[in-house]
Amino acid sequence: MSLSLTIKLHLASSSSSSSQLTLNNHHHANKVITCSNTKIRSKPIYSTTPLITPTWKVRARVKQCGTMIKSSLIEPDGGALVDLVVAESERGAKITEAESLPKVHLKRIDLEWVHVVGEGWASPLKGFMREDEYLQSLHFNSLRVKDGSLVNMSLPIVLAIDDETKGRIGSSSHVGLVAPNGDCVAILRSVEIYKHNKEERIARTWGTTAPGLPYVEEVITPAGNWLIGGDLEVLKPIKYNDGLDNYRFSPKQLREEFDKRKADAVFAFQLRNPVHNGHALLMNDTRKRLLDMGYKNPILLLHPLGGFTKADDVPLDVRMEQHSKVLEDGVLDPATTIVAIFPSPMHYAGPTEVQWHAKARINAGANFYIVGRDPAGMGHPTEKRDLYDPDHGKKVLSMAPGLEKLNILPFRVAAYDTKESKMAFFDPTRAKDFLFISGTKMRAYAKSGENPPEGFMCPSGWKVLVKYYESLQAEEPAQQPVLSS
Amino acid sequence: MSLSLTIKLHLASSSSSSSQLTLNNHHHANKVITCSNTKIRSKPIYSTTPLITPTWKVRARVKQCGTMIKSSLIEPDGGALVDLVVAESERGAKITEAESLPKVHLKRIDLEWVHVVGEGWASPLKGFMREDEYLQSLHFNSLRVKDGSLVNMSLPIVLAIDDETKGRIGSSSHVGLVAPNGDCVAILRSVEIYKHNKEERIARTWGTTAPGLPYVEEVITPAGNWLIGGDLEVLKPIKYNDGLDNYRFSPKQLREEFDKRKADAVFAFQLRNPVHNGHALLMNDTRKRLLDMGYKNPILLLHPLGGFTKADDVPLDVRMEQHSKVLEDGVLDPATTIVAIFPSPMHYAGPTEVQWHAKARINAGANFYIVGRDPAGMGHPTEKRDLYDPDHGKKVLSMAPGLEKLNILPFRVAAYDTKESKMAFFDPTRAKDFLFISGTKMRAYAKSGENPPEGFMCPSGWKVLVKYYESLQAEEPAQQPVLSS
Repeated sequence: MSLSLTIKLHLASSSSSSSQLTLNNHHHANKVITCSNTKIRSKPIYSTTPLITPTWKVRARVKQCGTMIKSSLIEPDGGALVDLVVAESERGAKITEAESLPKVHLKRIDLEWVHVVGEGWASPLKGFMREDEYLQSLHFNSLRVKDGSLVNMSLPIVLAIDDETKGRIGSSSHVGLVAPNGDCVAILRSVEIYKHNKEERIARTWGTTAPGLPYVEEVITPAGNWLIGGDLEVLKPIKYNDGLDNYRFSPKQLREEFDKRKADAVFAFQLRNPVHNGHALLMNDTRKRLLDMGYKNPILLLHPLGGFTKADDVPLDVRMEQHSKVLEDGVLDPATTIVAIFPSPMHYAGPTEVQWHAKARINAGANFYIVGRDPAGMGHPTEKRDLYDPDHGKKVLSMAPGLEKLNILPFRVAAYDTKESKMAFFDPTRAKDFLFISGTKMRAYAKSGENPPEGFMCPSGWKVLVKYYESLQAEEPAQQPVLSS
Repeated sequence: MSLSLTIKLHLASSSSSSSQLTLNNHHHANKVITCSNTKIRSKPIYSTTPLITPTWKVRARVKQCGTMIKSSLIEPDGGALVDLVVAESERGAKITEAESLPKVHLKRIDLEWVHVVGEGWASPLKGFMREDEYLQSLHFNSLRVKDGSLVNMSLPIVLAIDDETKGRIGSSSHVGLVAPNGDCVAILRSVEIYKHNKEERIARTWGTTAPGLPYVEEVITPAGNWLIGGDLEVLKPIKYNDGLDNYRFSPKQLREEFDKRKADAVFAFQLRNPVHNGHALLMNDTRKRLLDMGYKNPILLLHPLGGFTKADDVPLDVRMEQHSKVLEDGVLDPATTIVAIFPSPMHYAGPTEVQWHAKARINAGANFYIVGRDPAGMGHPTEKRDLYDPDHGKKVLSMAPGLEKLNILPFRVAAYDTKESKMAFFDPTRAKDFLFISGTKMRAYAKSGENPPEGFMCPSGWKVLVKYYESLQAEEPAQQPVLSS
């Protein structure tokens, strides 16, 4: 399935075109944005109980008006954005070298990690983790950097190899990484090979070892018993050729875009589901509050996750089409929104993973992060309950080492207000007027062809979902096993 | 079994007697210790690769000579040692209050935690963890303190209650804690009750959920589905009346003792096994190296763990008797050694637990911590392998947030040198001369009545073990189930 994408990105400055950003730029709804010296309060909008307020959290940010815009964006972790894609001038020689090295064959999800690390989403991480990084990530959800401070790093970003591959590598210092299509896409240098204790990795990352965790079953269980860490050199930008590469902005490209737009606040919204009007209410309300706080030009980074997701999630292409309808319909303002794909695979590791989702957005320039109920959560794979306490995600996020500089915006609960026939913030004084429509419920509506209450989602966005589930049902009979008599 | 204890503590100053420290003080082997202004290098002795060297790690410590000794000891976590035992003058009123409150009935191990927290081993923790502390401990192995810095806290110190107890507590702010003997021993104030997700706690603490983990089976599996946190007030010092209370020095008492002795370095050795000559070699060698570094009076804190241990470990009383023989025989120098009991229960949680063992000793004044192979480790309960990578403990310890100020001394491997007939540091150039005698092997010798090679352990210490295992075998027939015909 390849749906056409019609998301419109509306760039605020006339010098906004870029060879990297090949987007439709319709230039309507543009606003003149003035850069002022308004004092900015970098405080959370909603109630939150940060354990500390470091002094540097409220320090004045350097802002300048004029042609040379000095970025006012949040600093990347480690102080500088990592970019591991080799310069074009060196590409030929490096490819020749890579072809002479022992090879490690990547699975699709390994390649997604090459993409993620190579573009600096995991800054200051410069490759697949060696054991000292792995242990820090696993035990402390953070990495110590040279100045002694901690950056957040809650998920181990590791590459597994089997005994046979380890044998082939022998004592080589460097290896070539080969994509599933056979292309040699990267070199891993000064490698270190260490044991892959799967049980411990799973237990410490997910807080359970129950069978049925999607990432575990897809990636870890079939993987080899060794991990190989090292410094990554990506031989050329990773492309998927799925019609969506134009939406895969690197952190550097996003920062350039925010700077071009003279954003003085960037608020990120991570999602792996269709956008309904409750989400939109929240995002629009966040923008309003940022304006009330004195920010002049808050930009929304609507940032759907684009890597591996579990089988019953809505696929990326369908979600991108749905998001584009939400912007076309004006539910979100295209002039102040950037839609881009976050290339990470999904772990469904709840409070551990939400830190990764937030940390990666710091590297992309976001200084505000919206967190919902049960972020990166799912049902327990073998018990009838949520795998994680739905409140733990935002609590852990507010306490996580290395995320002190990020403003965490806990979700306010939105629900369908049957009196007003629209999504609204839940009012506990008239609880009976509100209808909660879960993701599961939403999918059930779409599957059955039944319409959700009017005002739940813009009609054109809803149609995208209905069409997707219809296509699934059309495929289903063919997927049933043929019984031999 | 109640073995007589003859450990001699040798106090360096003549004003050393204390009503709190009711020890035999034979005053032999005393040394005159002079306090000098020698520049102290707070650096590890053995090779280690600390990721950072914070400036405050090498700052000069305040030292004074004279009657008023200002402590030169390492600062407790959080800056001040927590002491939650109520003043005697308030005791009566508090006991009356406690008796009027809803009650929580403690198990033996809960009481051990009341003891541990009450004396400040877990400083700056002031009670059983509330959820924000629990989550930080579980996810980050550390707690954020008011100034924004982190202190280490790798084990959740929590109190579980069942539904019925939760119901009885209702909306009470405070509860009374009742020891297994029926005494009301503490008040827990401003309580917070939250869910006890056992599976997640176990997975994140142990890195496995396999059945057969001793602490899990003893404490967690039978526990209730709620945790209750709050501020602890201990109504009077916890005593066990097992003939060993005199060796249960609080961190405050230990610090006073180190100050009295004018210790300028304290190196802690955590153990839950008998001391063999390999251990002794290591401790004596450490002292020698500290002297070489310029310390004038390094004191060894020989600090056996005194709380819950698994069934096949050697019991505390036997170990204390064995340790006393080691000091009597002069294998360790009584003049520069303090033997005391660390009241914590044992988790057998490897790299996670070793951080707790080290952190607690900071609070007791130790600035050097010796770490061995596979600290706090054990065999995997269901697989034929070590539960933890034997090197992970010391690696994790060297990287742990909040332990930067502690000097970690990795164990040098000692083994039995068959050429020299003594325990010696392993020399890989003549590996075949060395015999490794594991704890399991040692226990097998003692059980069978066979003597280990001469020079493995002082004979009087060995006799203690043999006697213990003989007593076990004598008991065994009586423990066999009687079959009814």
